[in-house]
Amino acid sequence: MKAAKFVKPGRIELEEAPMPDIEKPKDAVIRVVRACVCGSDLWWYRGISSMPSGSYVGHEAIGVVEKVGSEVTHVKPGDFVIAPFTHGCGHCAACRAGFDGDCLDPDRRGSGGYQSEYLRFTNADWALVKIPGQPEDYSDDMLDSLLTLSDVMATGYHAAATAQVKEGDTVVVMGDGAVGLCGVIAAKLRGAERIIAMSRHEDRQKLAREFGATDIVAERGDAAVEQVMALTDGAGADAVLECVGTELSTDTAIRVARPGAVVGRVGVPQQATMDTSKLFWRNVGLRGGTAAVTTYDRHLLLDQVLKGSIQPGKVFTQRFALDHIQEAYEAMDQRTAIKSLLLVSE
Amino acid sequence: MKAAKFVKPGRIELEEAPMPDIEKPKDAVIRVVRACVCGSDLWWYRGISSMPSGSYVGHEAIGVVEKVGSEVTHVKPGDFVIAPFTHGCGHCAACRAGFDGDCLDPDRRGSGGYQSEYLRFTNADWALVKIPGQPEDYSDDMLDSLLTLSDVMATGYHAAATAQVKEGDTVVVMGDGAVGLCGVIAAKLRGAERIIAMSRHEDRQKLAREFGATDIVAERGDAAVEQVMALTDGAGADAVLECVGTELSTDTAIRVARPGAVVGRVGVPQQATMDTSKLFWRNVGLRGGTAAVTTYDRHLLLDQVLKGSIQPGKVFTQRFALDHIQEAYEAMDQRTAIKSLLLVSE
Repeated sequence: MKAAKFVKPGRIELEEAPMPDIEKPKDAVIRVVRACVCGSDLWWYRGISSMPSGSYVGHEAIGVVEKVGSEVTHVKPGDFVIAPFTHGCGHCAACRAGFDGDCLDPDRRGSGGYQSEYLRFTNADWALVKIPGQPEDYSDDMLDSLLTLSDVMATGYHAAATAQVKEGDTVVVMGDGAVGLCGVIAAKLRGAERIIAMSRHEDRQKLAREFGATDIVAERGDAAVEQVMALTDGAGADAVLECVGTELSTDTAIRVARPGAVVGRVGVPQQATMDTSKLFWRNVGLRGGTAAVTTYDRHLLLDQVLKGSIQPGKVFTQRFALDHIQEAYEAMDQRTAIKSLLLVSE
Repeated sequence: MKAAKFVKPGRIELEEAPMPDIEKPKDAVIRVVRACVCGSDLWWYRGISSMPSGSYVGHEAIGVVEKVGSEVTHVKPGDFVIAPFTHGCGHCAACRAGFDGDCLDPDRRGSGGYQSEYLRFTNADWALVKIPGQPEDYSDDMLDSLLTLSDVMATGYHAAATAQVKEGDTVVVMGDGAVGLCGVIAAKLRGAERIIAMSRHEDRQKLAREFGATDIVAERGDAAVEQVMALTDGAGADAVLECVGTELSTDTAIRVARPGAVVGRVGVPQQATMDTSKLFWRNVGLRGGTAAVTTYDRHLLLDQVLKGSIQPGKVFTQRFALDHIQEAYEAMDQRTAIKSLLLVSE
């Protein structure tokens, strides 16, 4: 089978790889229908974080179950599923508390690349999310939206959930990448009345508005803080979604929060050391981390997508056959795509 | 009138001071009935933080309103009141959101010492909390408990509120000072099922148990983390109250939290710079700051004290006439008192 392999910064190649198989009783093997490229993949693609050469890459997919291990009873071969990157066991204290992205099971990590024709999925029994019917029952747009439930939409939702967005809130969303845009959807889904999207790119501003943003702030740093304060009568936001992860973005997120508000962050922290007294003296909270993908999909997001109430699949602005994996990465690296989709099989 | 004055580290003197008067339309002058010494007073008493020599000190009191400014209508001379140290205006975005400890009114700060016979209180109209009846209607024990509502009990409650303690939770309380002990009361009030108090002193362990602690951990650092993990089947606590403020205590608080739990901190951070990726990768939240004293008193705590459901006044293990202010500080500095009460007037 074919799988995408990281060669060196700036270079991904598709190559023939061994067909994955069941290795543990809770594994499943999945035939990938669609996969995609994540903003976090760009960290190692750009050489900012390290990744061993030869690694199979990607962690977002939907597909059809091909085989299951002896302890997998909730899904069976032929089932159409979302493959969350989080692999929660469903039984540990973290999963039971609704934080399956922090599953404590030491065996949970996947076997590698989802940007491939087949993948081995650990903890399949609990973590996989079954989609009714078969891939051919859905439109392209619906398949795109279902694909976002493997990571990006759930991650945007995690930002809103940990920022504790509630009915009527004024919310700031830092970041206009696919996660930030899904954060806008999530804030609206949780009842935010006003959604201020921080965005500097016209195409993304447009999509942010389509997803529910009521205001756009194109400034950064001090100017951005001033703008948000002007928009909120000097109060600041009731909740802030940090979907970037840089030091500047996190600092701005904290400064635009009103006293008592919570910053929900999902951007992988690039520079995580900070003076937390700036939180303490304004009672600003800092929460967030890895999304609870399976939990959110099961309890809310799959239903919202199937009903058509949310259309997160619109973040895929370019689509590529798996063969064109290099171009899919380039489009995201050069920001010609908000997010690149990979068409793998029918 | 007599007021306590900071002379130099280790030295507080009572001296004749000018009688305070109304300076702004929202001021009140209060005759102090009881005041007390706060753990945070020890920072400058010990010379760890700076305080100008000659400052009038103290920020916790109950008393009787003597005079009010022209814009004060909710209290009148003769009313018995709690004087919260937070002076919320009641109208800004922070106060409206229930975070009056972070009131945005630039004029809110008090005129100084509450360890005195009279004090001037800013933002009296909204911030003062009226107690039914007069001081002579209450027992000594009840007056002690009412006094804790000016700071320490509300601060302990803030730790539990920002840690989002809920029904059935397993809670860890870091710190066995008066705030930590009030944190135990608060955790129980919010329905915690199991309360693990970190305490190394036998008298405080005893009071913690009386307030609702179900387990005591006397260890610190790594050993404390191990103990909590052993007590919680390796899961960690659902909520953690950080009532110390040191680097070690905050680090331990984060480590004993289960994935997704929130650390609510009220200990003034001594070393606030930290690597927040240890929060992110376990989805542990960090909230807290200055307590919303007026809000908590009005909505919950005054009622609980008057009904006798909670008895936070037990944290006062020594009492002194105002003349003996130096001894009151020494007792706390030397840990012979958990908290020192000052008897000021009848």
